[in-house]
Amino acid sequence: MAESVLRQRMDALRRLARRGAVAPLAKAVAKMRAEDVAVAVAHMSAAEQRLVFAQIRVDHTAAEVLTRVEGEDFLHLVNDLPVERLLVLVNELKADDRTDLLERLPAEQREGVLARLHKEERAEVEELLGYRPDSAGGIMLPYAFRLQEDVTCRDAIAAVQEAADHELIYYLYVDNDAGQLSGVVSLRALLTHPPSTRLSMIMSTDIIAVSPETDQEEVAKITGRYSLLAVPVVDEQRRLLGIVTVDDVIDVIREEAAEDMLLMAGVSEEAADPSRSSRLSAATKRFPWLLVTLIGGIGISELVSRFSHTLEAEVVLAAFMPMITGMGGNVGVQSATIAVRNLATGQGEGGSWRSVVREVVVGNILGVAFSLLIGAYCLARYGSPLVAVCVGAALLTAITVAAMVGTAVPLSLRRLGVDPAIATGPFVTTAIDALGLTLYLGIASLLLGRI
Amino acid sequence: MAESVLRQRMDALRRLARRGAVAPLAKAVAKMRAEDVAVAVAHMSAAEQRLVFAQIRVDHTAAEVLTRVEGEDFLHLVNDLPVERLLVLVNELKADDRTDLLERLPAEQREGVLARLHKEERAEVEELLGYRPDSAGGIMLPYAFRLQEDVTCRDAIAAVQEAADHELIYYLYVDNDAGQLSGVVSLRALLTHPPSTRLSMIMSTDIIAVSPETDQEEVAKITGRYSLLAVPVVDEQRRLLGIVTVDDVIDVIREEAAEDMLLMAGVSEEAADPSRSSRLSAATKRFPWLLVTLIGGIGISELVSRFSHTLEAEVVLAAFMPMITGMGGNVGVQSATIAVRNLATGQGEGGSWRSVVREVVVGNILGVAFSLLIGAYCLARYGSPLVAVCVGAALLTAITVAAMVGTAVPLSLRRLGVDPAIATGPFVTTAIDALGLTLYLGIASLLLGRI
Repeated sequence: MAESVLRQRMDALRRLARRGAVAPLAKAVAKMRAEDVAVAVAHMSAAEQRLVFAQIRVDHTAAEVLTRVEGEDFLHLVNDLPVERLLVLVNELKADDRTDLLERLPAEQREGVLARLHKEERAEVEELLGYRPDSAGGIMLPYAFRLQEDVTCRDAIAAVQEAADHELIYYLYVDNDAGQLSGVVSLRALLTHPPSTRLSMIMSTDIIAVSPETDQEEVAKITGRYSLLAVPVVDEQRRLLGIVTVDDVIDVIREEAAEDMLLMAGVSEEAADPSRSSRLSAATKRFPWLLVTLIGGIGISELVSRFSHTLEAEVVLAAFMPMITGMGGNVGVQSATIAVRNLATGQGEGGSWRSVVREVVVGNILGVAFSLLIGAYCLARYGSPLVAVCVGAALLTAITVAAMVGTAVPLSLRRLGVDPAIATGPFVTTAIDALGLTLYLGIASLLLGRI
Repeated sequence: MAESVLRQRMDALRRLARRGAVAPLAKAVAKMRAEDVAVAVAHMSAAEQRLVFAQIRVDHTAAEVLTRVEGEDFLHLVNDLPVERLLVLVNELKADDRTDLLERLPAEQREGVLARLHKEERAEVEELLGYRPDSAGGIMLPYAFRLQEDVTCRDAIAAVQEAADHELIYYLYVDNDAGQLSGVVSLRALLTHPPSTRLSMIMSTDIIAVSPETDQEEVAKITGRYSLLAVPVVDEQRRLLGIVTVDDVIDVIREEAAEDMLLMAGVSEEAADPSRSSRLSAATKRFPWLLVTLIGGIGISELVSRFSHTLEAEVVLAAFMPMITGMGGNVGVQSATIAVRNLATGQGEGGSWRSVVREVVVGNILGVAFSLLIGAYCLARYGSPLVAVCVGAALLTAITVAAMVGTAVPLSLRRLGVDPAIATGPFVTTAIDALGLTLYLGIASLLLGRI
């Protein structure tokens, strides 16, 4: 369906919900995919959301909508749902989505549903809840379509035909006698070999697998690199625990990218999402990072105060302070972003410290160019060689130092096992400001002969 | 295979290449996947890269390595390859990868290979070269497995069995008599219906398709939202032109995320990639953005100069300028990042202008908190109510304005059809600096009674 048609339907849905037109709403909802209902619902009032949700006649669709709605919107939808209804919906979902949904329910509802789940399903959910949400175990589907090595293609096809509908089949996994994952067969390979061929003859044995503890970012990298539709998750004995499918990988990549971006600006995922935090709590969550900036700013004010004689002697020097910090900050953020990005994509890996040298050289080239420009400007504007030399020399050193710090910090953070994306945050920018201004005012004070 | 084993093999490969050990190198390469050889090769000298590449005995693997190596590394590998050899490798690839590889070849080699391609393949490549590289047409595979509506499941299975190996099958696309895409059938559906069933009976007709002009980012969004393995690309008459597969979508999502991140720091993709630009050209590419910052800084220096009397009267005011710009800058970047991220994920869409209000309120809360803190500090440290009031009031307004500008600019850019990610660049940060300082020094000057 064309995107424009989709957009029209979503807008129509919103209008109907606003008017409270129940019958047409039910008709409209019946024509839409769960994915689209979820998007449409995200921009409604709580009452409108509940009204739309109540019109979904197909349980499976309702359940799918719930898996796709986040934060406050999710709570609006589930808040007044009785446990019995939730149980019906939860049973419509595959184990990974079911676990995810249960994880997000308010504790009381979660316990209620868990207690009413069949023993088998409850064990499954509880096992999945045991893994970190951002690990392969946390995002995997805890089963896969698996057969023994000596099964023939004919029997495998029969098994596929009999498989329950909810077992979405990407690949057929093959176990050896010891119950270890020993091979993979594509659905297509089943069709293109004689019916009597045993799976052991046609399976690929060079399997790319991950452990349940593998970080989801690593799983995403592997899936992308080898163009897989699913990655098997195996335990230490190479027994198959489940699979991570490519659609979940796409979600992971998007999440991690958004997370990195926010982390670089010092904002948490929660503070960013209007549906997940009130204005006050969003402000509270951004407070610590800004407090660091404020404390840094106070430190800098102390530092600048020490040079008050210098500033009093040549008050125009104060006018260039914002430029020194602005240029240093921008170069630092550029360098840090390049480093973070190259670490994320794997480029420059191995040559890490070489990249610091590279950035310092690039910074130096930029520094020379800009210090000449600004020096010339100062000379022309204020006719003061002193100001020109101070501003020019300070800018050169500030830019070079910023490039170095901006590159070195993410690399060091990575070595320490900390996400390098925080390197563009207040610590680094404050450090670069402080260094730049110390250089600037120090040079000025030296030249003015007033140390 | 475990990641650790892989890493060991890659390290071993690098060591062998450094030593120029040809025979063991050939043996090691024979055991590796093309994807891993490509990663290993990325961190070698040009001579080592050529040595490793020459040891790849399987043409298909060599071709796959080429598709995965980028920038300068790619040029190192292809530079001394004769056109005949390139032709062999190019013919190993599927049309989308083939076109991509040809696009990246130096013009002379490209023309040489194109001229020697079979007529049919050449037409295909030339058609694909006609689409924008970042559109659905530019990344699609220009064919799909397609059958007519009246074909039976039995015949469809036979067709799948006979299909050439290179036609990777995700879904079966069904055409109506007019040659228009009318339905999709999964491989599994073929197996689970009686052999005599016609495709028209089991196909899903609610098809999500894109046009060749659709932006790749949009294609990625659709693939992710509906958990598809492939999206069909159709022309205006709904004739199937090709498919975009999920592995290409993963590349797109990664690319766009990296691009956004770099754009936010005002760095181009090229300037960031050590393999794609020399130090001098990297500096040249970062020059324009920094020039904007410099010019902004000069403007700010003019602005601050106007308040030189104020600063002379109370030189400690200069000491807090970096804090005002630092806090304003950080809040602005936070707000802009949140807006960019919410625009990218589709959250907050529709409620765009409401989000400006939200940010202003959040900014105000933060502003009040921090201005009280800094006011108290100034009073305690300098015993000057004047400084305390100036700094506090300026910080409050600067933070609020920064939150507003930071949110409003990305939204406005989006309306203008410009990528909102540039909003965190120098224009906005400079504007926020200028606004913050004008407010600060303006308030001070008012209070000092010296307008």
